[in-house]
Amino acid sequence: MEKYKLKHINALTLGSMPDRFRTHLINSLSGFKSANLIGTINAQGQTNLAMFSSVIHLGASPALVGFITRPDSVIRHTLENIKQTKQYTINQVSEDFYINAHQTSARYLSDESEFEHTGLTEHYLDGYSAPFVKESGLKYVLTLRQIIPIALNNTQLVIGEVTDILCDEKAIRSDGYIDIETLKTVAVSGLDSYHLSSRLSRLSYAKAGTLPTNISVDGNTIAL
Amino acid sequence: MEKYKLKHINALTLGSMPDRFRTHLINSLSGFKSANLIGTINAQGQTNLAMFSSVIHLGASPALVGFITRPDSVIRHTLENIKQTKQYTINQVSEDFYINAHQTSARYLSDESEFEHTGLTEHYLDGYSAPFVKESGLKYVLTLRQIIPIALNNTQLVIGEVTDILCDEKAIRSDGYIDIETLKTVAVSGLDSYHLSSRLSRLSYAKAGTLPTNISVDGNTIAL
Repeated sequence: MEKYKLKHINALTLGSMPDRFRTHLINSLSGFKSANLIGTINAQGQTNLAMFSSVIHLGASPALVGFITRPDSVIRHTLENIKQTKQYTINQVSEDFYINAHQTSARYLSDESEFEHTGLTEHYLDGYSAPFVKESGLKYVLTLRQIIPIALNNTQLVIGEVTDILCDEKAIRSDGYIDIETLKTVAVSGLDSYHLSSRLSRLSYAKAGTLPTNISVDGNTIAL
Repeated sequence: MEKYKLKHINALTLGSMPDRFRTHLINSLSGFKSANLIGTINAQGQTNLAMFSSVIHLGASPALVGFITRPDSVIRHTLENIKQTKQYTINQVSEDFYINAHQTSARYLSDESEFEHTGLTEHYLDGYSAPFVKESGLKYVLTLRQIIPIALNNTQLVIGEVTDILCDEKAIRSDGYIDIETLKTVAVSGLDSYHLSSRLSRLSYAKAGTLPTNISVDGNTIAL
């Protein structure tokens, strides 16, 4: 018996779907997404906080992280502030405040701070002006390195280099892996679905000729 | 009592870490990542399959999905094939075969197919040459639209437009959301940790002045 009953959606069907339906559908395709709040401040000292599900790892040396901005009035403040100050924080969202984090997507004015309106708390690191989210257990500050335009759909890939990291020490494992599951970091699916995680296993480096084996959460020993 | 005991890792510490440790650490920062197998074929008919944790949603109209390639001998075949044929499939990885999927990262030669070596099964859609992964419940074929170089670290953002989607029909909800949790799609954290998901809730569109409410998995009714 076939495991799946596959529905085939072709280009014609995709093109003629109602916009809202297509948006939900296409947003489900890439798989699980990250959930992060990006904190910024402008030259007048007004803070801003916005939720992004597009933050991705770009490289470790240098330590580069990217995210996608859309031509959107809600997140416009984030990009403007980053261009002004060249500085921003990224704060992982956890179960405790994912509803507050989602709320930052509402349309607030540029002189309103999402921190205030969503019940989240600012905190600062000496030497940096961009605000962190106190409620977050893993957060870091970045310096803007490049904004790459994606002309195909008028979006931009914003690339920053990580300078300082703040992480709940209980989550840092002996090989450098950060156990974000223990921080109850959430994942996103589609446009609006939030999930906790449940680890299957960490796997050893893949080598031809032999299947990978489970490694322990701290990366040090082979789990029996 | 403070919720977190935050460890502060500054730029100096980051720069002087052993490479492997820093790689694990930085790979943990962005949060949960997607887990997808990208299927390609070359002009000689040799198929190729490679795991990527960098597939991201770029837009719904047009339907654009991106992924990051590194200057890496293992995934070089994927990019070469895409450049040759302009066509590739993306297949979500589930609990049933995440170990096989991880194994595709091993160094196989260009005349070896990962399908064969990792026990995964090819299947095809009329009119398309790129192979799908039979074991996957949500997969789609894309046409290459653009390759954007990221000079900062010699990587590339490969952007494709989705043409056809194959999805287990039980996962498609009435508003277009695809319930990837029901497909047991996995998420990745760090370099090598695989997770199932556990939904907290879907949330309604954020509006200023009122907190979001839970919406049902099918997006249609307000959950009580």
